[in-house]
Amino acid sequence: MPGGRTLRLQPGDRIEALCVLGSRIHADVHGAAPAGAVSFGVKHTEGVSVDVVSRGRDEAEPVPGSGTRWPLQEGTVLRFSMSQPSTEVNDNKVTVSFYGGEGKPITQAGVFLTGIGISLDVDADQDGVVERNSPNKASWSWGPEGHGAILLVGCDKEIPSAPASDCDNEQVFNKEDLEDMAQMVLRMEGPQRLPRGYEIILSVSVRDADRVGVFHVQNPFFGQRYVQVLGCRKLFHAVSYPGGAAELDFFVQGLCFPNDSFSGLVSIHVSLLEMLAEGIPHTPAFTDTVVFRVAPWIMTPNTLAPVNVFLCSMKDNYLFTKEIQTLVTKAGCKLKVCFGYTNRGDRWMQDEIEFGYTHAPQKCFPVVLDSPRDRGMEQLPVKELLGSDFGYVHKEPLFEAITSLDSFGNLEVSPPVSVGGKEYPLGRILIGSSFPTSTGRRMTRMVRDFLHAQRVQAPVELYSDWLAVGNVNEFLTFVPTSDKKRFRMLMASPAACYKLFREKQKEGQGEATMFKGYSGTDTKRVTINKVLSNDILAQQNQYAQRCIDWNRDILKRELGLTEEDIIDLPALFKLDKQGKAVPYFPNTVTMIVLAKELGIPKPFGPVTAGECCLEQRIRSLLEPLGLSCRFLEEVASYHGSLGEVRCGTNVQRRPFTFKWWHFTP
Amino acid sequence: MPGGRTLRLQPGDRIEALCVLGSRIHADVHGAAPAGAVSFGVKHTEGVSVDVVSRGRDEAEPVPGSGTRWPLQEGTVLRFSMSQPSTEVNDNKVTVSFYGGEGKPITQAGVFLTGIGISLDVDADQDGVVERNSPNKASWSWGPEGHGAILLVGCDKEIPSAPASDCDNEQVFNKEDLEDMAQMVLRMEGPQRLPRGYEIILSVSVRDADRVGVFHVQNPFFGQRYVQVLGCRKLFHAVSYPGGAAELDFFVQGLCFPNDSFSGLVSIHVSLLEMLAEGIPHTPAFTDTVVFRVAPWIMTPNTLAPVNVFLCSMKDNYLFTKEIQTLVTKAGCKLKVCFGYTNRGDRWMQDEIEFGYTHAPQKCFPVVLDSPRDRGMEQLPVKELLGSDFGYVHKEPLFEAITSLDSFGNLEVSPPVSVGGKEYPLGRILIGSSFPTSTGRRMTRMVRDFLHAQRVQAPVELYSDWLAVGNVNEFLTFVPTSDKKRFRMLMASPAACYKLFREKQKEGQGEATMFKGYSGTDTKRVTINKVLSNDILAQQNQYAQRCIDWNRDILKRELGLTEEDIIDLPALFKLDKQGKAVPYFPNTVTMIVLAKELGIPKPFGPVTAGECCLEQRIRSLLEPLGLSCRFLEEVASYHGSLGEVRCGTNVQRRPFTFKWWHFTP
Repeated sequence: MPGGRTLRLQPGDRIEALCVLGSRIHADVHGAAPAGAVSFGVKHTEGVSVDVVSRGRDEAEPVPGSGTRWPLQEGTVLRFSMSQPSTEVNDNKVTVSFYGGEGKPITQAGVFLTGIGISLDVDADQDGVVERNSPNKASWSWGPEGHGAILLVGCDKEIPSAPASDCDNEQVFNKEDLEDMAQMVLRMEGPQRLPRGYEIILSVSVRDADRVGVFHVQNPFFGQRYVQVLGCRKLFHAVSYPGGAAELDFFVQGLCFPNDSFSGLVSIHVSLLEMLAEGIPHTPAFTDTVVFRVAPWIMTPNTLAPVNVFLCSMKDNYLFTKEIQTLVTKAGCKLKVCFGYTNRGDRWMQDEIEFGYTHAPQKCFPVVLDSPRDRGMEQLPVKELLGSDFGYVHKEPLFEAITSLDSFGNLEVSPPVSVGGKEYPLGRILIGSSFPTSTGRRMTRMVRDFLHAQRVQAPVELYSDWLAVGNVNEFLTFVPTSDKKRFRMLMASPAACYKLFREKQKEGQGEATMFKGYSGTDTKRVTINKVLSNDILAQQNQYAQRCIDWNRDILKRELGLTEEDIIDLPALFKLDKQGKAVPYFPNTVTMIVLAKELGIPKPFGPVTAGECCLEQRIRSLLEPLGLSCRFLEEVASYHGSLGEVRCGTNVQRRPFTFKWWHFTP
Repeated sequence: MPGGRTLRLQPGDRIEALCVLGSRIHADVHGAAPAGAVSFGVKHTEGVSVDVVSRGRDEAEPVPGSGTRWPLQEGTVLRFSMSQPSTEVNDNKVTVSFYGGEGKPITQAGVFLTGIGISLDVDADQDGVVERNSPNKASWSWGPEGHGAILLVGCDKEIPSAPASDCDNEQVFNKEDLEDMAQMVLRMEGPQRLPRGYEIILSVSVRDADRVGVFHVQNPFFGQRYVQVLGCRKLFHAVSYPGGAAELDFFVQGLCFPNDSFSGLVSIHVSLLEMLAEGIPHTPAFTDTVVFRVAPWIMTPNTLAPVNVFLCSMKDNYLFTKEIQTLVTKAGCKLKVCFGYTNRGDRWMQDEIEFGYTHAPQKCFPVVLDSPRDRGMEQLPVKELLGSDFGYVHKEPLFEAITSLDSFGNLEVSPPVSVGGKEYPLGRILIGSSFPTSTGRRMTRMVRDFLHAQRVQAPVELYSDWLAVGNVNEFLTFVPTSDKKRFRMLMASPAACYKLFREKQKEGQGEATMFKGYSGTDTKRVTINKVLSNDILAQQNQYAQRCIDWNRDILKRELGLTEEDIIDLPALFKLDKQGKAVPYFPNTVTMIVLAKELGIPKPFGPVTAGECCLEQRIRSLLEPLGLSCRFLEEVASYHGSLGEVRCGTNVQRRPFTFKWWHFTP
């Protein structure tokens, strides 16, 4: 403890004290002096070093073996410290002798000292190994030059039969569970036993007690059974002092991710308590503190390599599933099908869950965020995803109504970006919301607050409430490229569609027909000429373009993008009876991105020279970037119900290699 | 809006747009070009300046009056801006002409522009005057070089008959109420009317809507009646456009102080919405944002000048009240007596309330914090304190039980301190708590969180649960001095008492008797010799001293104090049946401090040479610092019920002259 500890000498008596190695004890000599004393001398054993500090003097005078006498002045303090642990209790001693007017001894005050090393240790330098008494263990700072120990939330489930996730359990059942946890070591050195009346206590504050759990082996002789010693309702734990030099291993897990009222930092203390005598309460004599930050939940953008693709098996999507299987095979990842008994008729895989991960120096595992939207598939994450090294987190608002803006098609994340000199190496989260000047729909505050509280992917709020479904993936996505920029942002663009159609008209293709082979309800013959001459449609698309442009301008500013970083994909919208926009033809931007393989909703655009001019245009925009476009028929199975390829699928991706703790929020 | 706004040209058509002065509009010429166009020319009226920005080129080319043709290249953008407001709608125009292969004109795209100035303005430079479009208005930063507008919480009550405080009212009744508020000005310049379909909307987010209230005059012709236009359930307010150059005054008040989940920052937006045509929803076209910080609640240490002293009138404290009156007169402040019908038998004035204040560039007023402890006097703050320019704030925990550590004798604040180079010009709050390793009593989390959230007096948690009453004012206080340090910290000290008694014993005064004339229950003859020979008492006081020393070491470290800054006042404690400490004789540290006048509990110490040696010692410690000690008899009225002078009184003090926004947390 910086600043040292105050000890009171008792003239005519001897007291006992523990001296924690590396700490300083101050004893006010003047304050303890008996009446009539004018000078003092000090004797001490070898194991303790003693300085005399006089008021007003900067330098302390070391006390020699014996002999010297100091005048008794107000403010004169003795400073003790020990650098070696005691082998026996009270094996060191300091004796202060007080002298009267003519050097006559009056009385003595003695201190028996027992040197003890106590250090609560963590991996403050973030290399996966617990240091010894790091000067940084009690603080946390961000950035590549930062420091501080890191905890994972035990949101996975090592034992399949366990009823809840690990952090709901107060027992640890196997080694895998311990491997997810941060190690904390209590190092002690000292005599075989503590002096009578001393106790060593591990503790957390009331506030942190529901955020962190500490485990310790229960009985080392009966197998490795670990029990929770701190956390939940356990605020403190008496450590049994093992004697000699010992290291006790503790395992620490987070119980919840950062949120609105939890910054993510938790502290654990070890305290030495002393008891003056039977019947007198303990007093604190020494405290050592370590700080952990609970690792955030991190989202994975389209530019990260896909691992697993999830899809619901429905009565009507057999061909679509085969198409996705082909794409998945080409991209070198795996397809995971969610069957009817789990999806219960809900096909919107994108909307129910968001894949992410959590990361500490010792471990990294995927974590699925479960949307408060529950439309059938709500058992999927717990029943089929949560498991060994696969975490689960759920945000359920208590009072707010859920809208379709709570679907996770409305939650995306950009690739790493640099904005006016500020780097976001994990990208920025994008959330669709209503325009502030309306009482419109927006994502529930509990989820928005959760996303903001993770801090490493600073969310940007966009305007998606102009759409009927209201999801940001209806107007934007990101694709990986191998050039310097590493990605492009794709945006739905009515302006680009009108421009293309006008070009085709000019080329004499005005009578080219849309929706050929389209299985949807719009079966009238629609030509380029008809679209271009429809003033209402033109006006509605001018409106849609303005809404998109508002977001486009925000995205350029908040993601530091230039026009060159954005590709406008032809799209058309129409307004429903509520004045909300729905796609006029399958919305190509709402695609699935698996590395370079794109699964794009087949747009059923005007066919000219045997080819759909929309597909042709999209290929010409994306293929030069090394991307492969596959257009998937999804009208009956998805588009007809106001969703597209992306809405019916979900992708678990490889985590970033970048360490989030090197970011500075 | 930095980055500019995207506008889509409609070839063969003319669109209308508002151009906000100072903002830029970008129009993608290539994207808007008709099929077959290879070059373009631009004409524009004088009021608008137009640049051509080509992809890959850093410099924009200004467009001359007419004549020049540019090749049509991908990424070529026109950039418009206006610097003067329009006098009529659509009085400016930009026309883009597209040309085909051999310079043949194909079509034109026109934009009618109306220049309009819109700026939401606040006092971002903190001088009490609203600037014009300050670049700092949308952000907030701490420190002497910082900036950002400041709001007061309308927690006072201008109208005595109103049922609640001002911020619960949705109407403003008089000018005084407006004077507490921050001014916000919406400046507009433009033609007499807005083009059709445009709206100007003032808005707050759902989140900020219960933290800020905005008022505006309802009908300027019928007196100055102001109504709330934003806040509570009002998320947006349509501003009626006055035409020409106009300034609309708004008045803004905070609705709550910062707390655990509210940093204190709120944003207000003005947006320009446009409507393309009847039946098409509005789209946002421009937003301007201002940020305010809600001023914190600030505590006042003993070193600030006293203004009013509060005291309960009880059946048994007539003489005490007279004594306090004398002290108050000498200190030049006023005595306010709380009578029985308000105090309802509760004498502990210190415990029920804490006086503080809140401060903005335009105004500063006192605010009383009401303790969750309710033992009779709970109506005092609302009935007798809350009023014009006297605010009130209350924290009532929903789930936690209240203990005596919630009494505000357990809440103190240090004078300004400097700790290892870090300045705390408003001091640091001191809160008594239990030692972390126990399930002991502590101040309710809601109040602790509130105190932390104010940010300008970074709280320090001390250990007060070792005392029966458990209040920090039982072992520490601060007194002003006129030397360089400006204050001393006084601490209760059993060690100092034993030292004094031993000196007196040595001087032959061992038979000097304590408690002479004492009206309490302890009426046995107690001498110095008896005290010094009582081993149990000695041990209990050694324990009390250890508890105090633990706090003393924390205070030295957290307030940057040296031994010279601390004065140890003789004190003795004894342990009750629960092992908690209570004072053995009236506890002198629990004094009232009114500038240099100290009202100290009369300790009834051993009388030697006709004088109480405790009083003598305390005088000798404090009088050389220029302090005047008056010992007040309070055994029957306060000490006998486990309180002292300070517990029965409370002091409203002058606020700091230091501006809290110049502090950097």
